Amino acid sequence: MTDKKTMIVDATDQVAGNGLMSRRFFMNSALASTAVVAGGSAAFAQETSVGEGQEDWTLYPGDDAPEYGDVSQFEKGRVKKFVAPPVGGRTASSAGRTPLHMLHGTITPSGLHFEVTHHGVPDVNPDIHKVVIHGMVDRPLKWGVEDLENYPTVTRQYFMECSGNTRVNWAQPKPDQNFMYMTHGLVSGSEWTGVPLSTLLDEAGVSPDAKWIIAEGGDSGSLSRSIPIEKAMDDSMVALYQNGERIRPSQGYPMRVLNPGFEGNTSVKWIRSLYVTDKPVMSRFETSKYTDKLHDGKSLQFSLEMDVKSVITRPSNAIELKKKGMYEITGLAWSGKGKIAKVEVSADGGRTWADAMVEGPVHSKMLTRFRIPWMWKGMPAVLQSRATDEFGQVQPSRKALLAARGKKAYYHYHAVHSWSVNARGKVRHVYA
Amino acid sequence: MTDKKTMIVDATDQVAGNGLMSRRFFMNSALASTAVVAGGSAAFAQETSVGEGQEDWTLYPGDDAPEYGDVSQFEKGRVKKFVAPPVGGRTASSAGRTPLHMLHGTITPSGLHFEVTHHGVPDVNPDIHKVVIHGMVDRPLKWGVEDLENYPTVTRQYFMECSGNTRVNWAQPKPDQNFMYMTHGLVSGSEWTGVPLSTLLDEAGVSPDAKWIIAEGGDSGSLSRSIPIEKAMDDSMVALYQNGERIRPSQGYPMRVLNPGFEGNTSVKWIRSLYVTDKPVMSRFETSKYTDKLHDGKSLQFSLEMDVKSVITRPSNAIELKKKGMYEITGLAWSGKGKIAKVEVSADGGRTWADAMVEGPVHSKMLTRFRIPWMWKGMPAVLQSRATDEFGQVQPSRKALLAARGKKAYYHYHAVHSWSVNARGKVRHVYA
Repeated sequence: MTDKKTMIVDATDQVAGNGLMSRRFFMNSALASTAVVAGGSAAFAQETSVGEGQEDWTLYPGDDAPEYGDVSQFEKGRVKKFVAPPVGGRTASSAGRTPLHMLHGTITPSGLHFEVTHHGVPDVNPDIHKVVIHGMVDRPLKWGVEDLENYPTVTRQYFMECSGNTRVNWAQPKPDQNFMYMTHGLVSGSEWTGVPLSTLLDEAGVSPDAKWIIAEGGDSGSLSRSIPIEKAMDDSMVALYQNGERIRPSQGYPMRVLNPGFEGNTSVKWIRSLYVTDKPVMSRFETSKYTDKLHDGKSLQFSLEMDVKSVITRPSNAIELKKKGMYEITGLAWSGKGKIAKVEVSADGGRTWADAMVEGPVHSKMLTRFRIPWMWKGMPAVLQSRATDEFGQVQPSRKALLAARGKKAYYHYHAVHSWSVNARGKVRHVYA
Repeated sequence: MTDKKTMIVDATDQVAGNGLMSRRFFMNSALASTAVVAGGSAAFAQETSVGEGQEDWTLYPGDDAPEYGDVSQFEKGRVKKFVAPPVGGRTASSAGRTPLHMLHGTITPSGLHFEVTHHGVPDVNPDIHKVVIHGMVDRPLKWGVEDLENYPTVTRQYFMECSGNTRVNWAQPKPDQNFMYMTHGLVSGSEWTGVPLSTLLDEAGVSPDAKWIIAEGGDSGSLSRSIPIEKAMDDSMVALYQNGERIRPSQGYPMRVLNPGFEGNTSVKWIRSLYVTDKPVMSRFETSKYTDKLHDGKSLQFSLEMDVKSVITRPSNAIELKKKGMYEITGLAWSGKGKIAKVEVSADGGRTWADAMVEGPVHSKMLTRFRIPWMWKGMPAVLQSRATDEFGQVQPSRKALLAARGKKAYYHYHAVHSWSVNARGKVRHVYA
């Protein structure tokens, strides 16, 4: 309702170098947003309501409403990306990566939630499948899906991340590996509903000497991980629902463990056995994999909690800037310890930083969306984001992370990520 | 870690009549939860790890991981319900209802979000489709999907409800109409991401004399609704994403208006025109439909804000109690005005009430999940829930609502809902 024709960019709207703008700052016509302005109002109304608006879909009744609505035919390219396509008929690992740069918000559609599968996706019959708690308990117990449906449930939004996410960045990756799928596609966010693991353990009666739970999946590889009893009694659950509906097969149908904030591999899918014991099982997935080699050749084991981390999803290297003007820089931040408290953004490779807007209410151990307006003047830029969680953990620079962890590391890469924008608007991953 | 074999129900755990229990109260073996207790631990381990656990899916590698994961073959019955099946080839209204009793949590999967479609589902090409703002503005503007992608966005979780939801309860419905689909299937919840409508209106420059926005859809019926300018400048958006991915066709692909907390019909799908004016358009959907007839024969018009409301989704009449013991009573509460502050539950038809646990963080104008443990002793019960929002609005009894609104009413039914449980565990809808 104010006349914006005369509005110009005020220096006080700039909150950091190279075009980062305050949240007060919105598009105005002088800055040539991408909206097309018609010559005259009358002609415009004519054109839009009779002209190009009259596509086929406005002239004939539409399709029947579906029982289960699918995505549009025009969106069929928004799918998970596999480095090597899954190979049928044999036991092989495959990693389906979430296309974060094609999505928005914080919830990942269940069909696009990343997955790392070491023995394929079993087609489990929920009428037969059970989960058992046994070992150092007063009485072993087992439950089917219908049994668990009557238990006290919780609903929480949590991120899940493979500790191998962004591992290509420990070294200079090959050019085809710095696409966003490859650098950050192994993190997703969902609403999960299930039964607290503590409820089931309490019912079985855990021995005071118990220290670990060995979670074993019902897939053909019996994927197993050791979970500290303190975590199991804290916020772990046996999840039955993801984003409102029963968990899908790739995500562990009909039930999976969920260890909020822990590396994804511990949230064992198709869970069939929870064995209570006093020592970890030392399975393949906590010895030959998912351990962290240090400078001196020794390895960290059971480094389960995921670090504070963030990434800009837009602009990123699948998204080109076609003209100068206003853009929104937006991305995701998360921490395995708790809530995101702050996300800073830089457009000049870390020389100056501004606080981004963080969308609330912020959920603990969940993807959190951040945003900041950016005026791109057609000059080169390096875009970065840096997250801080409620415990004061700050996402490190790549230099600091490499100094601390060395180049032998493979998992738990979580440094600040850099996108360069060149003068033609091309975006690519760089080490800044 | 305590011995629960000797635990009995303590009267202090009861928080209201007929078995409503405190949150401290969990299952224990004396109360015969549905878990099967094995005879001996060794035999049990044998049985579970070698015996029935050895289904096909544990013996052979699973299927290839999919590019877009679908629901399990065992869950294909969880779909929307249509009163009359959609009829192809002609313009007819159809209402696809969300199966709330088959879902859990607060997010509705996008494919199961309810829809009321008056002219079918158009298959809109996002490369052609535009939305225009014109009328009483300084300069008419139009935007395609790619244009809006660069604008400042917001991500919010909101419920959407048809004002006709639960309308069958104004009168005694036919027996086949009191199934949960029919009484409450026209409300759903999602995470929406889009551009605030105020941003677009500001850019167009709205006249100080403007009072309404006429939103018109790109379907063949050009469905139109008048939106007060105050709402449009408050929290309305043009949404592009639902639950992380582009909106699906049934929900308005590629863009729709979203008026949080308002009756669903105002959130115009396939939005193509936003006409700024000083009076409402008096379209079919705000004259012959979506008005509220009163005792004296006059009608309320533009009763847009949805009321405070709740419903128990479990147990409900598709869910039978197969044996005495512990159950969770759970459901959803929402208010078009803001956040849910409190949900009370009764197991004795409203004689006594207890506060249910409300899952946080509570989002404004979003479905909110509530829960309370319930010990069913095999006696008849009448289960009810009653929501209160942050502004102190309380969900009315059916008697009070009928007294206030009369039996000529058709929309905006929001009274306390009652499920009776008989001695055999059958659940059905009653007027209590």
